[in-house]
Amino acid sequence: MDRTQNDIDYVVKQADTGFQFLQKTDVTERAELMYAIAAEIEGLGEILIETAHLETALPLGRLQGEKARTVNQWRLYADAVRTGLYSEARIDRDPNGQFDLRKYNKGLGPVVVFGASNFPFAFSTAGGDTASAIGAGCSVIVKAHPAHLKTSQLMADAIDRAVSMYGASNGVFSHVVSDSFDTGQQLVRHSCVKAVAFTGSFHGGKALFDLGQSRPDPIPVFAEMGSVNPVFLLPDYLANNFEAFAKQYISSLLLGVGQFCTNPGVLVSVGGEQLDYLKAELKKELQAATTGKMLHAGILESYNRLKEQMIQYDAVRILEEGQNNEAQDFAQPLLVETEASQVLANPKLLEEVFGPFGLIISCADLNEMKQVMEQLEGQITITFAASTHDIRECQNLFALAQDRCGRLLFQGMPTGVEVQYAMQHGGPFPATTDARFTSVGPDAVKRFLRPFSFQNWPNEFLPKELQDGNPLQIDRLVNQRWTKA
Amino acid sequence: MDRTQNDIDYVVKQADTGFQFLQKTDVTERAELMYAIAAEIEGLGEILIETAHLETALPLGRLQGEKARTVNQWRLYADAVRTGLYSEARIDRDPNGQFDLRKYNKGLGPVVVFGASNFPFAFSTAGGDTASAIGAGCSVIVKAHPAHLKTSQLMADAIDRAVSMYGASNGVFSHVVSDSFDTGQQLVRHSCVKAVAFTGSFHGGKALFDLGQSRPDPIPVFAEMGSVNPVFLLPDYLANNFEAFAKQYISSLLLGVGQFCTNPGVLVSVGGEQLDYLKAELKKELQAATTGKMLHAGILESYNRLKEQMIQYDAVRILEEGQNNEAQDFAQPLLVETEASQVLANPKLLEEVFGPFGLIISCADLNEMKQVMEQLEGQITITFAASTHDIRECQNLFALAQDRCGRLLFQGMPTGVEVQYAMQHGGPFPATTDARFTSVGPDAVKRFLRPFSFQNWPNEFLPKELQDGNPLQIDRLVNQRWTKA
Repeated sequence: MDRTQNDIDYVVKQADTGFQFLQKTDVTERAELMYAIAAEIEGLGEILIETAHLETALPLGRLQGEKARTVNQWRLYADAVRTGLYSEARIDRDPNGQFDLRKYNKGLGPVVVFGASNFPFAFSTAGGDTASAIGAGCSVIVKAHPAHLKTSQLMADAIDRAVSMYGASNGVFSHVVSDSFDTGQQLVRHSCVKAVAFTGSFHGGKALFDLGQSRPDPIPVFAEMGSVNPVFLLPDYLANNFEAFAKQYISSLLLGVGQFCTNPGVLVSVGGEQLDYLKAELKKELQAATTGKMLHAGILESYNRLKEQMIQYDAVRILEEGQNNEAQDFAQPLLVETEASQVLANPKLLEEVFGPFGLIISCADLNEMKQVMEQLEGQITITFAASTHDIRECQNLFALAQDRCGRLLFQGMPTGVEVQYAMQHGGPFPATTDARFTSVGPDAVKRFLRPFSFQNWPNEFLPKELQDGNPLQIDRLVNQRWTKA
Repeated sequence: MDRTQNDIDYVVKQADTGFQFLQKTDVTERAELMYAIAAEIEGLGEILIETAHLETALPLGRLQGEKARTVNQWRLYADAVRTGLYSEARIDRDPNGQFDLRKYNKGLGPVVVFGASNFPFAFSTAGGDTASAIGAGCSVIVKAHPAHLKTSQLMADAIDRAVSMYGASNGVFSHVVSDSFDTGQQLVRHSCVKAVAFTGSFHGGKALFDLGQSRPDPIPVFAEMGSVNPVFLLPDYLANNFEAFAKQYISSLLLGVGQFCTNPGVLVSVGGEQLDYLKAELKKELQAATTGKMLHAGILESYNRLKEQMIQYDAVRILEEGQNNEAQDFAQPLLVETEASQVLANPKLLEEVFGPFGLIISCADLNEMKQVMEQLEGQITITFAASTHDIRECQNLFALAQDRCGRLLFQGMPTGVEVQYAMQHGGPFPATTDARFTSVGPDAVKRFLRPFSFQNWPNEFLPKELQDGNPLQIDRLVNQRWTKA
């Protein structure tokens, strides 16, 4: 079912037909399709895990877990879609019969998905973007990630099987394989494409965003890009937890060889004896830790280049280097340190080095810590390694943090991204291009919807979500009251 | 309280302080502020109506009605905000205590509002954009519309009084008076401004949108721009309703001297005897109708210019001119006609002429009508003057219409825009810059929100919307179930 760059127009026209097909489905029917896709992915055997392992160097156990997460994502999103939560059905009837207005959310149109390399299942071909777009009633065109083409094809075939068994139009899902950069651009520019989802670098995401906004008819481009996910380590907490914190931090920093978009790449604390104790612990933990292979040669090369750039700055000192194994192409972790005054003078020190790299910023006092917070660009997460006493003392830090991220953590580490309704994965620019939406959790479906009103429209031609008698038994806001009636 | 173009930065910094103030309010407190503003506007006496009448030439009765609508808007949006509907509170607690995730929607930040000239109350200084931004917890900077500065000032003073009585920071609402085009641009470019709402021309809205997207950190720009709101008159309906339809159409076309964004500027029908009967009726109705003064000299001039452009096309023939009274600067209504084949050859014939101008497009058959539909750009509304028999016969027209508008009407006319939950006022580009949101009805609040997650955050520091015990008694999605518990 490979489709190549030679027929972009054909693929997109097919996707438009697929969208028209999905427009006629109701939320129950779309949930059924999603369950079928989940079952097909679940049914993929060892070949999937082995293929992905060979293509990404990710450990087998991690891939098993990610596969389960991907299947669960499809099911959870389907459950959410089926409840009608995202239909947001509203009915207003004028008591004098002047109007009968009914509104629900429908799909935007065909969506182009660019998967991530660091989650070959959960954020790629059959990942959250594809699941949420189909849940919204949009057809999907996946541009296969070049770093795991075979894995992508296995997933695409699984989706195709489910689509075909379901009796849906082929165009509901398309898989485009191309090593040309132009293919992605042509897809984003095509007039029938109505939205784009991307997970990857700032450079790639921002380019697609600009392309989407400069079309004759601009379209939403949801790009999840970089984040240094700063951890603010506050005095009271530090004094009482440095050993446990050091373990936690190094473990989070090295998780998946540092290849998480929520990797805690920056640690901010007030300097002094306590921080010195912590640094000694961090060195010890880093020495004891093992590392591994990165996803592909390009990522390793980029990691080494950005790391090199950082240590070229006079202000940046190496605190500790981790395990090295060049023979096996392992990524060598690195902890560096600097002072807040240096960061305030050079914001480039806060740029992301994607990989197992941590920068420790030492502040003269809490006021300087506040200035570092003010300097921060948008982040996916900000973590307060703090006691409640610390929070009480630092209300201004807390307020500033709320303007600069999408998820705020009290203690713990940001690397775990739970697939839950209450998850916000996305933050102010440049973390993502649209902080108004999440790319993890069922609410990700909302990205691909738009409201649509029918006025005085005959009942028989209304979508089921809005028909008299509420055949789907979803919650609806009728004359300002929630009801299933 | 005039603030001039000399201190944009001061105004925006104040607005940022106002935003920080609002961030600390909960939905109940914000609703109180909105009720207070509604009461202040309601309390404005005859001076408001007289001032607006002098500045806009709108009739006194219409202005009384618009004032009541504006007051009701503040109250309805406040009611909606208070229920927590837009907070979308979600709480997920891991049974094993691994995580406690709580998400709600909070304000984006300071919002710049550019009001419309055609609704000096309901879509201007104290209009729906301002009400929905404050409801979302955003401070507002209104750039006063130059065509009704005194009206704008009266409204701004009313809001200021409510804000001051409420004990809120001055920066919650700011009113900027300037005749410089640059002022608006400077506001949109300011790094502390986080969203923009605009109602007006395509030219103005698109320029602001581009400005917002080309900032170092792009921001949402909600521009409601043009629409020709086509009416598709289908054969069965036409055969049985031409007299009533002609009355309805001309009345809608001339409402407010054609100065509604939902003015039905294009009428599409199959040619033949029935359409000829209708044309005769339309001529009769137009002759009998009175017209009036437009909002200001600039709008009249633009109307006359665009009308002139249209009749310069060989393909466009004058069907009937309406009442003329140049001495009083009245706008002369105009009905013109052409064939579908001409429209298909020249899409410019489908461009908006803002004012009492109607273009009747005669199609050879239903297939050509479908081609005209396909040619349409995004619209706020599309109306089917149809019987249920017609709809059954024209399912393909119906499907195409759904991709091309935000509100679809069965019979009736699109000019009435009810302020209701089920209203969608906004459509695919170029009708608006973001079809995913409405600018009328309480759902307009959603434009100015973004989700924010707290992970394991101590209860005492959470916003009330997310605290244990649900102190605001709003509906929350707790572990996948809706509850007030």
